Amino acid sequence: MDLKNIKTAVTATLDGSGQVMFQQSAWTGLLFLAGIFWGSYECHTPQVAWGAVVGLIASTLAGYITERGSKDGAQGLWGFNGILVGCAFPTFLDNTWLMWLALIFCSMLTTWVRTGMNKVMAPWKINSLTFPFVLMTWVFLLASRIMDGIAPTTLSEPELAGHYQFALDTSFGALVVYWLKGIAQVFLVDSWVTGIFFLVALAVCSRWAALWGAVGSALALAVALLFKADASDITAGLFGFSPVLTGIAIGCTFNSPGWKSALWALAAIVATVFMQAGMDVFFEPFGLPTLTGPFCITTWLFLIPLYKFTTGQKKHDEWKSGWDGFVSDLRREEKNIEDKDKK
Amino acid sequence: MDLKNIKTAVTATLDGSGQVMFQQSAWTGLLFLAGIFWGSYECHTPQVAWGAVVGLIASTLAGYITERGSKDGAQGLWGFNGILVGCAFPTFLDNTWLMWLALIFCSMLTTWVRTGMNKVMAPWKINSLTFPFVLMTWVFLLASRIMDGIAPTTLSEPELAGHYQFALDTSFGALVVYWLKGIAQVFLVDSWVTGIFFLVALAVCSRWAALWGAVGSALALAVALLFKADASDITAGLFGFSPVLTGIAIGCTFNSPGWKSALWALAAIVATVFMQAGMDVFFEPFGLPTLTGPFCITTWLFLIPLYKFTTGQKKHDEWKSGWDGFVSDLRREEKNIEDKDKK
Amino acid sequence: MDLKNIKTAVTATLDGSGQVMFQQSAWTGLLFLAGIFWGSYECHTPQVAWGAVVGLIASTLAGYITERGSKDGAQGLWGFNGILVGCAFPTFLDNTWLMWLALIFCSMLTTWVRTGMNKVMAPWKINSLTFPFVLMTWVFLLASRIMDGIAPTTLSEPELAGHYQFALDTSFGALVVYWLKGIAQVFLVDSWVTGIFFLVALAVCSRWAALWGAVGSALALAVALLFKADASDITAGLFGFSPVLTGIAIGCTFNSPGWKSALWALAAIVATVFMQAGMDVFFEPFGLPTLTGPFCITTWLFLIPLYKFTTGQKKHDEWKSGWDGFVSDLRREEKNIEDKDKK
Repeated sequence: MDLKNIKTAVTATLDGSGQVMFQQSAWTGLLFLAGIFWGSYECHTPQVAWGAVVGLIASTLAGYITERGSKDGAQGLWGFNGILVGCAFPTFLDNTWLMWLALIFCSMLTTWVRTGMNKVMAPWKINSLTFPFVLMTWVFLLASRIMDGIAPTTLSEPELAGHYQFALDTSFGALVVYWLKGIAQVFLVDSWVTGIFFLVALAVCSRWAALWGAVGSALALAVALLFKADASDITAGLFGFSPVLTGIAIGCTFNSPGWKSALWALAAIVATVFMQAGMDVFFEPFGLPTLTGPFCITTWLFLIPLYKFTTGQKKHDEWKSGWDGFVSDLRREEKNIEDKDKK
Repeated sequence: MDLKNIKTAVTATLDGSGQVMFQQSAWTGLLFLAGIFWGSYECHTPQVAWGAVVGLIASTLAGYITERGSKDGAQGLWGFNGILVGCAFPTFLDNTWLMWLALIFCSMLTTWVRTGMNKVMAPWKINSLTFPFVLMTWVFLLASRIMDGIAPTTLSEPELAGHYQFALDTSFGALVVYWLKGIAQVFLVDSWVTGIFFLVALAVCSRWAALWGAVGSALALAVALLFKADASDITAGLFGFSPVLTGIAIGCTFNSPGWKSALWALAAIVATVFMQAGMDVFFEPFGLPTLTGPFCITTWLFLIPLYKFTTGQKKHDEWKSGWDGFVSDLRREEKNIEDKDKK
Repeated sequence: MDLKNIKTAVTATLDGSGQVMFQQSAWTGLLFLAGIFWGSYECHTPQVAWGAVVGLIASTLAGYITERGSKDGAQGLWGFNGILVGCAFPTFLDNTWLMWLALIFCSMLTTWVRTGMNKVMAPWKINSLTFPFVLMTWVFLLASRIMDGIAPTTLSEPELAGHYQFALDTSFGALVVYWLKGIAQVFLVDSWVTGIFFLVALAVCSRWAALWGAVGSALALAVALLFKADASDITAGLFGFSPVLTGIAIGCTFNSPGWKSALWALAAIVATVFMQAGMDVFFEPFGLPTLTGPFCITTWLFLIPLYKFTTGQKKHDEWKSGWDGFVSDLRREEKNIEDKDKK
């Protein structure tokens, strides 16, 4: 393997990190990883950062083994589920070698599950987003309760819903921290500094994505405060991370930026907050985190109706990502349907 | 806006009320609303009736904003999910302005979610029925536990299943009340008088629908009594409302009335009772009502196999509804498939 | 009805028993039944064996009534869900005449639900496997808690997850018993002798199936031991039955046997163990058994990506089953797609 191949492989792998927020950019991916390392060392859980690296590599490798012909690999679409598995396992499970074994296996699974789910969803013009990570991690986190080798040391206890408290600090400084943590929690990191890392990382690739990420977390925070949601979840940024992803997805990835798509993205962000709250409550009896499930489900609900938001400024220059091919295929097909309708 | 436009808009909106039980008729819709007003004032919860009005208008408006080209609006297919959201929110949540804000947002969401779900389900020759209402209301009711601004004051407490009691009054008069309440509960109203309103409303548009609604609630009651189901649910009519809808759907909406389709509808009604019982138990740990979920799921299960019930009397005169277009498309496609099979 | 017709009907019905493990063979089916009778009499629950017979006949009859034209009946594809319903109901519910009535109704339902689910899943090149049995039995078992006429006398109590213990006997003799029970539990039988019956029954029709069944239970046991899973579930063989089915499905039914498909099947078996563990925990608050749900879901996840495992030895002689037609259709379609891709 010569140096050029190594560079290609490293770039594709780092792209996988960037694709968690829809950015096909190795620099964005690298800055995401830097943010994860900062946050996890700050929280004294360095295993989370190393988990991210291992999960990213394992899932990318799984794609390399079984889907060498696919274009997905070069766009970093093999790695984005795996890096999230890698963040989640050491966050919730005991740090044993069996945990690392399960982490590697589950990361690889997400690559295959993604291929399958995308095939199923293709006719509806959506794809699986981060749901392969969400589904398989739910399975393994649930399994950890009945398997002593991967004990759920830092997972919440199962309980019937109802133990919430609603008093919190709403000073300006505190609100900024909640807002930034909402962005950091996309990778399950509880650090406002990491939130800054992530915003910069987004801006490196797309200023639109950085804007919608920031708006997503801010609007989610506002809705959560307005409806007096649980204080501990607000302060940890747990109402923010799914809306961040919804904002980037609906505001500037699957729709061209414009005022109509902006209104639609704002509605989607608000809906994601309620989906997050509802799923939080639903998962209480299992002591299970929602992960990015609320983002996936809400984004599907807002993409499937296929409302069209074409504006004069059809495609924004700054807006580039591995989802481009998918989106332009989709646009072309829509045009065909429209043309057919006219006849 | 001249008077004719206003009349059209009012008719289409009232059709939305009628479409809850598959009837495209403003008079049926008006009588449904009358029944809701009667029942909710009788139960000292007038906000339920006003919620119905607000939800109906909000969801119809949502369709008007985003789907003006669609034929669905004129058939009242934008409003039927929204009116149910409007009945459910004030039934279970605290009567605050935030609740009304959430009610309006959720009602509008159902219109968009319906469009998306129908696209997904189209290849299977089914549609989303009242599931957009069911799904989004589940989400908001769950969310209400973790959001103090829309507190779940009259929602059951989450608990592990097992607290049932089976002794009840089975005098003839009592049974008639349970039977009528089963019909009234389609709109979450706990009043036997409202049940009479609804039967009359159905008969105004279709005597078949009135018959199947009546049979649905009666057979469900019989099955619930035979299998000794929970008494408080029986007396409140909670085993009846889903089978009422299943009966109308399978007996005379998606199938032409006839003896074969009648047998199939009876089987579907019985299955709906078990689905209702099963989902009641499943939702205990969340303190969540099933809403019309059991109707949706069972009706899908009985529609998807696409058994054909063509009888000599192919189409009944009295049987007319906004679902006609959908059904006749479906029939035509089936014929094409049959023709192809013959070749 | 002459003797030949009776023979045909009996063969088709017994095929239904064999198809639980994908074998279209009346002898296999008969030996499965023999194993069920042995085990249920050994456990002093003869009603389970008779339930199997009743469920098998009821579901086959349901197909005969509504789908006479279909080729599925002759291949035994009507009966395999029903026989499992017949095993499950008397295992968990009170032995009353209402239970038998519900058993017959639910068995018949599975035949119709299977037709519907297969239509839905056809575009994804998968089918419903035993999921009609799983879904409808979940519904009725849940319903049994709220219906005193079919009381859940031997179903676990609902509880929040967490009551596990991890000490167990790992002598060689004990491990063999757990391994054989894992195979017997496919039909919900807790007897190692029945496991031997089932292995012999498989070998009568396909030595590959017997091999993959044996490997499935053994590998599942190894993974469960390695990850220190709950002892009572291991000793009862409850980690084994789903992987047994996954092994047969992925190893030699939907893929031709070969080293690549073997690796894929091994991965699928391991994944099934985690799916089993996860679903066990998820169902604790409902006191509900997973049934063969983990097998269905994992097998779908491993079939949908449609990786191709064509080997030199394209089709194995011993490998024959009612799934043949389905699989060869699938292969043909894949070839068409490949040919199209080449152009």
